[in-house]
Amino acid sequence: MVDVVRSKKPSVHKRTPAGGAPTAPRSAAEAQRADALEPRIDIAAVGELLLGTWADARRESREMIKDEAFWQIPGQPMPEHRERVLGQLHRFVDAGAAGRAYPVEHGGQGDNGGNLASFEELVLADPSMQIKAGVQWGLFGSAIQQLGTTKHHAKWLDDVRTLKLPGAFAMTEMGHGSDVAAIGTTATYDPETDEFVIHTPFRAATKEFLGNAALHGRAATVFAQLITGGVNYGVHCFFVPIRDENGQNLPGVSSEDDGVKGGLNGIDNGRLAFDHVRIPRENLLNRYGDVAADGTYSSDIPSPGRRFFTMLGALVQGRVSLDGASTTGAALAEYIAITYANQRRQFDSGAGTDEVVLLDYGKHQRRLLPRLAQTYAQFFSHDQLLRRFDGVFGGEHDTPAEREDLETLAAALKPLSTWNALETIQECREACGGAGFMAENRLVDLHHDLDVYATFEGDNTILLQLVGKRLLSDFAKQFKGKDAASLARYAVGQTAGKIFHGAGLRQLGQSVADFGSTARSVELGLRAEQQHELLAGRVEQMVTDVATALRPASKLKPAEAAALFNEHQAELIEAARAHGELLQWEAFAEAVEAITDAGTRRVLTWLRDLFGLHLIEKHLAWYLISGRLSGQRAASVSRYIGRLCTRLRPHAQDLVDAFGFAPEHVRAPIALGGEQQRQDEARAYYAALAASGEAPISEKTLRKQKK
Amino acid sequence: MVDVVRSKKPSVHKRTPAGGAPTAPRSAAEAQRADALEPRIDIAAVGELLLGTWADARRESREMIKDEAFWQIPGQPMPEHRERVLGQLHRFVDAGAAGRAYPVEHGGQGDNGGNLASFEELVLADPSMQIKAGVQWGLFGSAIQQLGTTKHHAKWLDDVRTLKLPGAFAMTEMGHGSDVAAIGTTATYDPETDEFVIHTPFRAATKEFLGNAALHGRAATVFAQLITGGVNYGVHCFFVPIRDENGQNLPGVSSEDDGVKGGLNGIDNGRLAFDHVRIPRENLLNRYGDVAADGTYSSDIPSPGRRFFTMLGALVQGRVSLDGASTTGAALAEYIAITYANQRRQFDSGAGTDEVVLLDYGKHQRRLLPRLAQTYAQFFSHDQLLRRFDGVFGGEHDTPAEREDLETLAAALKPLSTWNALETIQECREACGGAGFMAENRLVDLHHDLDVYATFEGDNTILLQLVGKRLLSDFAKQFKGKDAASLARYAVGQTAGKIFHGAGLRQLGQSVADFGSTARSVELGLRAEQQHELLAGRVEQMVTDVATALRPASKLKPAEAAALFNEHQAELIEAARAHGELLQWEAFAEAVEAITDAGTRRVLTWLRDLFGLHLIEKHLAWYLISGRLSGQRAASVSRYIGRLCTRLRPHAQDLVDAFGFAPEHVRAPIALGGEQQRQDEARAYYAALAASGEAPISEKTLRKQKK
Repeated sequence: MVDVVRSKKPSVHKRTPAGGAPTAPRSAAEAQRADALEPRIDIAAVGELLLGTWADARRESREMIKDEAFWQIPGQPMPEHRERVLGQLHRFVDAGAAGRAYPVEHGGQGDNGGNLASFEELVLADPSMQIKAGVQWGLFGSAIQQLGTTKHHAKWLDDVRTLKLPGAFAMTEMGHGSDVAAIGTTATYDPETDEFVIHTPFRAATKEFLGNAALHGRAATVFAQLITGGVNYGVHCFFVPIRDENGQNLPGVSSEDDGVKGGLNGIDNGRLAFDHVRIPRENLLNRYGDVAADGTYSSDIPSPGRRFFTMLGALVQGRVSLDGASTTGAALAEYIAITYANQRRQFDSGAGTDEVVLLDYGKHQRRLLPRLAQTYAQFFSHDQLLRRFDGVFGGEHDTPAEREDLETLAAALKPLSTWNALETIQECREACGGAGFMAENRLVDLHHDLDVYATFEGDNTILLQLVGKRLLSDFAKQFKGKDAASLARYAVGQTAGKIFHGAGLRQLGQSVADFGSTARSVELGLRAEQQHELLAGRVEQMVTDVATALRPASKLKPAEAAALFNEHQAELIEAARAHGELLQWEAFAEAVEAITDAGTRRVLTWLRDLFGLHLIEKHLAWYLISGRLSGQRAASVSRYIGRLCTRLRPHAQDLVDAFGFAPEHVRAPIALGGEQQRQDEARAYYAALAASGEAPISEKTLRKQKK
Repeated sequence: MVDVVRSKKPSVHKRTPAGGAPTAPRSAAEAQRADALEPRIDIAAVGELLLGTWADARRESREMIKDEAFWQIPGQPMPEHRERVLGQLHRFVDAGAAGRAYPVEHGGQGDNGGNLASFEELVLADPSMQIKAGVQWGLFGSAIQQLGTTKHHAKWLDDVRTLKLPGAFAMTEMGHGSDVAAIGTTATYDPETDEFVIHTPFRAATKEFLGNAALHGRAATVFAQLITGGVNYGVHCFFVPIRDENGQNLPGVSSEDDGVKGGLNGIDNGRLAFDHVRIPRENLLNRYGDVAADGTYSSDIPSPGRRFFTMLGALVQGRVSLDGASTTGAALAEYIAITYANQRRQFDSGAGTDEVVLLDYGKHQRRLLPRLAQTYAQFFSHDQLLRRFDGVFGGEHDTPAEREDLETLAAALKPLSTWNALETIQECREACGGAGFMAENRLVDLHHDLDVYATFEGDNTILLQLVGKRLLSDFAKQFKGKDAASLARYAVGQTAGKIFHGAGLRQLGQSVADFGSTARSVELGLRAEQQHELLAGRVEQMVTDVATALRPASKLKPAEAAALFNEHQAELIEAARAHGELLQWEAFAEAVEAITDAGTRRVLTWLRDLFGLHLIEKHLAWYLISGRLSGQRAASVSRYIGRLCTRLRPHAQDLVDAFGFAPEHVRAPIALGGEQQRQDEARAYYAALAASGEAPISEKTLRKQKK
């Protein structure tokens, strides 16, 4: 099956004349571009690189979704869309594609990395299907797998995999999303009957936004405060049946439909509330905490805080997969917008010749190419994340420290990639003008569906704050054991450094050194090592600055300490973002280092540079204020980006072709040659008209004739 | 009717305890905030200010759309939505609200400003209704009114107003959107029959994206190349019947349905193509160009270029109204997000007390308040734009120069406000988390519908480029008559200035002067005059830089000149954006100057400062590179913004209440008190539980007890 895909590829992705290379150079800029044409990327090899470690799993998934039964139908009303997506999940089971990460004894393959890789590709067919699959097998199923024990696996996992038991993942409540520890639902143990009583004590404790809750779910993994013997042992997860075989709510369970959402309307999100619903004691998913028949609580993890975070951490795969899916979504948008921009013409150049292809405009390159570089970076950083995930969940590298690192990495990357997807898709939609607004061209639905990726599975801002706190605690560890005086000296040193930078002294020196520098020498100062130094230095300095600012907190009253933290919250989040950007850049740089083909390496080095410079440009004011870039060098950053865009322009089509999307994945008419055909037809018409001698003359010509 | 609205307002907009003022200060930051509470804005007076010159027209419109028959139904399938919106337009006619700008003799009021003001408010009910109304009365009707003459008015305007004659505005083609001059449709005069032959010569010349074209239109105002006597006189507009009374296409006319779009699905957008369709010669809308029976062409405007731009300029009202509608849309999003952020609590502060209201978080203030300042600025700049529009179209100030200024102003403001609406609505949607993604809370549909505002009625990037070219030509006029040598000296002077700045010398001086400055003195350096100087100086310098860079173009071959321009395209667009931002800031500053109430004036001054500083922060790297801000002062910009956010935080609810939206305009459950009610219920539950002595204890307490 895989071979069929590969052998088909060349015909699908052949380079049209209107694609990468303009046919006849007609300006200095174009001539320059023609020269730059010499190195070419090996499209197939880059495609392999982008598919990453689990390329086969991705190819299998892509092959499956070539079947139009899996495709989103723009504008399909919500009820039909929901049923269609449920049907798609059944097809998915029939294809043997479900539950790949589950244990072999329950029909899975124990393949954690491959499971997420194949799941991420579903975004190309219909993000509703991707997320509904994620709810069923990734959240509901994973809660049973990761938080339950073998007895739970034996009882439910087969039915979860085969969709005989569709389920909801009931963590979020109306009143508490990001702050899971504060949820209101209670699970109170009753030793008389050996049962837990699941209860929603007030409206805000209603479980909310749950996929499968409005219609299809038969059970739910419900997070609740575990109370036994008058003690609250914190949040635990319980398996709670919610509907009978006819789809009727079980006694004490009430559900509501969330109705229409901003996207993902193929999923039946809804609310669940419980009125003293009794479940057997055995339904506590007891891997990290258990209750004996007499009500005694026990856990391998004594610290309630660590126990809570261990349980949440077991569910990190949602975040991991969103990082991948949003990267693939952004890549699809770029494929569409860049292919269109290589065919669509608008306005003549003023040189009196043909109309200009959109991607030949400097501004259009500026809009699309840095984002393409960003998406490439994400493919590489995501593969690293996925490998780390597989290492931990496959058991190869499963230590608390590795888990913590994995969670931090996921929390750093998921916000960046989901936000980038939204911004990129929007930019692509606008770059396609009115055509981009037509649903058939995919971009708008892609934006609508991926919108919520920024706030579910961990709100992006909250995730970055988590990363920021981790950076602060790592920073603090450096000084563990050192005395207060040395810390104080360090802090003072930092401040002095800042003033030194701020006053422009170091800046001035650099300026003078740069003075009169040619373009080439400026670029030399912004090459790989310098990019890394600038990006890494920024993280270091920002963390140091926040840590220094927060040092007095330990001596303050809680309320004052909270106020001080609040004052620096935005900076801490910025530091975390800088950290994520650095990781993406490093992943890109590592990938480029491994490339042996000279043309590919050269072009991807330019793309990596564009990504690095794009990040530096975004934070240019910071680099100037901190004295890390002189005004002269800073000014050269934008010019350098412009030159990189010019260099990369002839490779733009190759770079999106390397994503390896088949027409069945793209589906947008504007990116499947329709525009090119219309342009050719129009040009042929005018050529024939001119040749016929019957073309009307212009007023200007008329006036000349009259004179 | 108007009085009823006003008298109802206080009860609708009463300040809830959870609104502006936290009930009990519990931290240093809150105590500070409590002090800052002293000045308050006069909500009603600010509301009047925001409603602007045509406040009564806006109030009337808002009163009308309190009727739920006008409200968008989330998720309504496209076919029903289209019929609903058509029905709303008929209600609109029945209410006498249609065609307010038309001449009195055709049932209008000749009220240009009031017409747009009332039309803009419709965005609160359903943007589809707003835009379909705009297509019918603003585009189709205006083409007849502005490009036609009295005979056309007499023949069609009454039926247009009463919707007996629904029509499409057929300008854009599949192959040409922004470049209207290059459209392919031809209108060839046939003196034998005294008819024009309207023809679509190839697929790319098909008229595209036209509201009313798929279903409801009976006629269209079609833009086509006017050809008579073998001469092409350029683009003119023609009245072309397209459907009979039964809705069947007339012979030679073919239409297609655009189907589902990213939003505005209540409008039947579609395509129109013409196969040698014959229309009477009289159907040429002949205000700016006419053809006699013998085929002789005549026009009051001899220059084909000026004639073309005059015709397009007559249709500027679309852009004007989008500037207003997108401002109102952004304001609605802010009302929803800020009201919710004043009620929603998440995480305790670490001070061991209650959970914190979202808007008390530093980062949340940073996300929402600068955008609120931006929207205030837009209300003020839009009112200025609307007054200018009314002056020109009402005939009071109708000169070619005034028209050109109006067009430039509209082209500068529309991109900024439509983009800001999208960014603001998205930020608000994310700031409301999962609740923001529910369609019932309005934010997602608002984003979907307003998405296309960025690319229709003039693509934002193209409009800014137009503004940029105008800035360049104004710049060039300054030097008209000066000799080449003085120009050259000027250019050299500029460059020297740049190097001087870039080398950081002036920067250093400023740094030293700032050294050790207190917060207050830094703020003194960023007050109104300095904000203006910085914003205005940026426009001036950027235009000068681009002009200087482009000077060699006049000596180059056309192809090389085009390449040179292309290299600086992005900068020119940035200069235009800076110009638009300056105009918005100036409008805000003027509005503040006119306020007499001390509290209002103080708070709005802070808000104006926040807007100015927000703009300066956005372009901080530029200010540093150009030497206009020292590193120290630049670093203080962010801190100052933080302080302004803290000051404005207690006024946030007042500032959005001043928008004057009634519950029927808001409709989002999260902003109508539901969240507050749930929070109160949850808090009461825990309080009662604690009082009952039956609350479970925590593990921590248990351990202490055991010891």
